[in-house]
Amino acid sequence: MRKHITGFSNPTVKYLRSLRDKKHRRREGKFLAEGLRLLTDARACGHVPEMLVMAEAREPHPLLDTLEADVAAGGGTVIETTPDILAKITGKANPQAVCGVFAEFDTSLAALDRTAAPIWLVAQALRDPGNLGTMLRTGDAIGAGGLVLVDDCADPFSVEAVRASMGAVFTQRIARAAWDEFLPWLRGGPGQLVAASLRDSVAYRGAPYTAPCFVLVGNESRGLPEDYEAACDLRVTMPMKGRADSLNAAVAGAVLGYEVLAGIDG
Amino acid sequence: MRKHITGFSNPTVKYLRSLRDKKHRRREGKFLAEGLRLLTDARACGHVPEMLVMAEAREPHPLLDTLEADVAAGGGTVIETTPDILAKITGKANPQAVCGVFAEFDTSLAALDRTAAPIWLVAQALRDPGNLGTMLRTGDAIGAGGLVLVDDCADPFSVEAVRASMGAVFTQRIARAAWDEFLPWLRGGPGQLVAASLRDSVAYRGAPYTAPCFVLVGNESRGLPEDYEAACDLRVTMPMKGRADSLNAAVAGAVLGYEVLAGIDG
Repeated sequence: MRKHITGFSNPTVKYLRSLRDKKHRRREGKFLAEGLRLLTDARACGHVPEMLVMAEAREPHPLLDTLEADVAAGGGTVIETTPDILAKITGKANPQAVCGVFAEFDTSLAALDRTAAPIWLVAQALRDPGNLGTMLRTGDAIGAGGLVLVDDCADPFSVEAVRASMGAVFTQRIARAAWDEFLPWLRGGPGQLVAASLRDSVAYRGAPYTAPCFVLVGNESRGLPEDYEAACDLRVTMPMKGRADSLNAAVAGAVLGYEVLAGIDG
Repeated sequence: MRKHITGFSNPTVKYLRSLRDKKHRRREGKFLAEGLRLLTDARACGHVPEMLVMAEAREPHPLLDTLEADVAAGGGTVIETTPDILAKITGKANPQAVCGVFAEFDTSLAALDRTAAPIWLVAQALRDPGNLGTMLRTGDAIGAGGLVLVDDCADPFSVEAVRASMGAVFTQRIARAAWDEFLPWLRGGPGQLVAASLRDSVAYRGAPYTAPCFVLVGNESRGLPEDYEAACDLRVTMPMKGRADSLNAAVAGAVLGYEVLAGIDG
């Protein structure tokens, strides 16, 4: 059964809007994902939204019908509303015609099975949600198992991060941990920790990568703390031919991640 | 001589603020760059700002003194203002304590010397200024000569693009051209056009790249038009192990760019 909402002051609209805010998201343990493509990817990965919000004036689409049936079957809520209200919920001038509310996933390290994939991306104090989402997307492409967020990172469940992930927020595992928690966990099993570094390092190309390989990328402006670099099993250097001494964090993770993939696949 | 500005309604403040807007930027032919690091990189590349704007409460810095002397020597204007006004100019809550106004560069294809570098990045209809700036930054790192913006791309002189470039807007050449203009120009001299593609392609790793190599990346949501792909000399495929069928545009350009660098350097 569809619920119809036309008023901006409706409590459900307020609730949905509040999920754009980190504090509310945390409290509710829910997050928003928008667009039919993303919601279809989510469904294929076993994630059906608890609430599905559609614009009244949308184009009919068989995938959307399937999604709606799944949400209803799972006991979720289906809401129809005006494009204006949908735009207000997503905070986007030109919103895609559908969005969903999902329960946040378990992001504890304990829930991570490191043997499930040959590569894992690890970001330390990554501040930009776009970079975070891009790393998830890259992780999906290189067959990584997921992304470990070390120390104080951007929220992987923010609208911006989910959007930039292009659906990979549903295919990649996400864990959050302080460094003091991550390092003992890592050392409690197999795992090679690799970072790009200018200190005591070897060329990134053809370096001896071994699975499961954890590719560590540092903060956008400060890079990695020196002792984090020192704790790595392998430090590698990428060519820097120009004036800059670093790459964008998500780019560094991708270039290194693809090299690791070639190394452990070959 | 320093000019002191304390009022939000001062015409110079209005002028500086207007440079955050594409229309005004185009009309004036000027753009803003912020932060001492960026301005120092600019100076090292021979670009001295026409106007230097500093916060009153800034930390003293020898590089800033040098910069101020250069601006004055070049007949430019040095302005001191409040941190609030500086924040309003840059549109950033926590602005870096200095920004500069530069004349936009010549972005005609005719001004581009393709023999000056072994790699050139080319973006088609790239819409995100952050991606654009990141491509400039990557270009600097891989020793590219510059970035060609084909069709309707984001403005490389926007505050966001300049910021994401981390100074590379000053080290990389930038050209803007429609495809109908770019392709004949490219074919008028040496140059291999390469794109990531799923059609009729070879593995990106170890593909026969030759200098000068033009690495073409498509629009964020639509990718490259089919006829643009068909016009390429080499189509390469990157592994896509997950659900996603594409990478972030700036990431794709970087992974491919680093591979080209390894190929033509080796």
